Amino acid sequence: MKHAVALAAKGRGAVEPNPMVGAVVLAADGSLVGEGWHQQFGGPHAEVHAFAAAGERARGGTLYVTLEPCCHHGKTPPCSDAVLRAGVRRVVAAMADPFPKVAGGGLAILRAAGLEVTVGTCEAEARRLNAPYLKLLQTGLPWVIAKWAMSLDGKIATRTGDSRWISGEESRRRVHELRGRVDAIMVGSGTVFADDPQLTARPPGPRRAARVVVTASGFLPKECHLRATARDIPVLIATGPGNASKLAGWADDGAEILEFPAQNAGLSAAAVLTELGRRKMTNVLAEGGAGVFGTLFDEALVDEAWVFVAPKVIGGAAAPSPVAGMGEVKIAHALSAADATVETIGADVLITARLTK
Amino acid sequence: MKHAVALAAKGRGAVEPNPMVGAVVLAADGSLVGEGWHQQFGGPHAEVHAFAAAGERARGGTLYVTLEPCCHHGKTPPCSDAVLRAGVRRVVAAMADPFPKVAGGGLAILRAAGLEVTVGTCEAEARRLNAPYLKLLQTGLPWVIAKWAMSLDGKIATRTGDSRWISGEESRRRVHELRGRVDAIMVGSGTVFADDPQLTARPPGPRRAARVVVTASGFLPKECHLRATARDIPVLIATGPGNASKLAGWADDGAEILEFPAQNAGLSAAAVLTELGRRKMTNVLAEGGAGVFGTLFDEALVDEAWVFVAPKVIGGAAAPSPVAGMGEVKIAHALSAADATVETIGADVLITARLTK
Repeated sequence: MKHAVALAAKGRGAVEPNPMVGAVVLAADGSLVGEGWHQQFGGPHAEVHAFAAAGERARGGTLYVTLEPCCHHGKTPPCSDAVLRAGVRRVVAAMADPFPKVAGGGLAILRAAGLEVTVGTCEAEARRLNAPYLKLLQTGLPWVIAKWAMSLDGKIATRTGDSRWISGEESRRRVHELRGRVDAIMVGSGTVFADDPQLTARPPGPRRAARVVVTASGFLPKECHLRATARDIPVLIATGPGNASKLAGWADDGAEILEFPAQNAGLSAAAVLTELGRRKMTNVLAEGGAGVFGTLFDEALVDEAWVFVAPKVIGGAAAPSPVAGMGEVKIAHALSAADATVETIGADVLITARLTK
Repeated sequence: MKHAVALAAKGRGAVEPNPMVGAVVLAADGSLVGEGWHQQFGGPHAEVHAFAAAGERARGGTLYVTLEPCCHHGKTPPCSDAVLRAGVRRVVAAMADPFPKVAGGGLAILRAAGLEVTVGTCEAEARRLNAPYLKLLQTGLPWVIAKWAMSLDGKIATRTGDSRWISGEESRRRVHELRGRVDAIMVGSGTVFADDPQLTARPPGPRRAARVVVTASGFLPKECHLRATARDIPVLIATGPGNASKLAGWADDGAEILEFPAQNAGLSAAAVLTELGRRKMTNVLAEGGAGVFGTLFDEALVDEAWVFVAPKVIGGAAAPSPVAGMGEVKIAHALSAADATVETIGADVLITARLTK
């Protein structure tokens, strides 16, 4: 099953809003005769690939699959049919699929047909892998990854705003890989003014993200990369009540303007994310600045942090740190991760952490 | 020689203000017949230990030593004599000793006696090992290690000042190990007010650090751990011109009060460190707060940073980050390290970096 989970992960960025799924078929004698993964949204499911590889050798064997086989006609026919046709005697699934049209129905069909069905093998790994899919399904909100680069002393810029570059080239390459697999990249207007970013993956990844700019006041530069490319790569501007009219020029140039309820000094980040979730966006990457992160963390909407720490000390009481907003009062209440992962990337250190209360 | 450098490092914390030195003796046939390291300030040097182990087998062999053998009567007789007595044919030293009473003299004596002498093998490693010794010798200033614990978003406390605990128990244990090998632990008055720290190594290490409190204004709590223990473990208070009188009570309780020149809003950190260097303090550990770090970094007086990053997000525009002061204007001018080391300690990440311009 661990192998099936690893296979599933190969679909990351290409299959969303579907779940990533991996499958392995063992023959009756225990030999591996087929494997596959869901490779592309709209394409065949993992089981179909694995059975195609196994052919007649699947008969009497076992299917290991990271998610319950589907039992509905979606973009492809039901996998439960394919499992029965393949003739395996036993199905081991890491977890049931909470997707309403499946929700145990796939496994029930297999059990009813007399197959031996086990659920829960490597369930934690499978849930971890598809946490974004599961979150969107269960809450309607996308999985939010907050990414920032800071110095050893927790600064994202000098006191005068110089921020190029804190992290090294290899770290920035890694950010482009991340951009290439998410549905949206979100920044605040301050970042657009300060950096005039393109917010594209270079080179492109399996998915092309929409660029989401949050500006409660509706104040944005007249000329910038985002506006110039809005016809080619979607730009969505989230602004405050009554401020869409200020952005008419952006709309003329191809950007989509949406108004959201105000909250504290800014916008309700939950409202913005709910809209992105409604569009079936599974993964949203927030790239700052400190105000956007402050709102996201104050509303406890961040699921994962990617923090590049560069071995530099910038100093300065007036130099900004990554997350503004109100913040926590007690350390004990802070979002935290028990199982952060650490990597050295060039001279930098990348810490990735799934945050929970 | 790499082995000799590793041996030398065993003396860390016990030999200062002497250098750490390791020695390995190979017999004429190339077999290792003796090794040793300088174990304790005032005790025998590395060569003496190594020759004692080797005995007659050293004759005609080679001495590998991480630092030029001394040629003066200090606390022990000259090592150059011991080398000649041992009868080795060849001496390989990682580096010459810039100590004024040696400074090439040891190697000259050996060459004059007809031994084959090589200098410079693993010199970079040897210099790195004894960088604090070399700095004190060459500049009169101690090696300054700045240590802090911060969240993933670069905060050392919440906006209300809660800071216990950001890092985990294992990280704090590591800090106690560090404290146990330095000559002084330096904090600002804010840290004394906020945390009432003991600034001791628990359990004790090879060396007992003096506690140095920086308070330009001379304002300190009337009752606290430091004051209560000042007779047992030295407390040195660095204050501004004319402010020593405010600290008479501390002096009565055993603390030493020294006045230093003012600089910007605080004290000249260079003046304080010069005094510590004059006392032959080789390693000084600065533990904050942000004001002390700000002064140290603004004066470019920090050699090494130990940064514990805890996988927590505290948030808050008003939550403090580790280094205050003026800070750099350009990222490109920041102190940085090309070769930071990274360790996972419990749930935390420790980054240690030797900083240079």
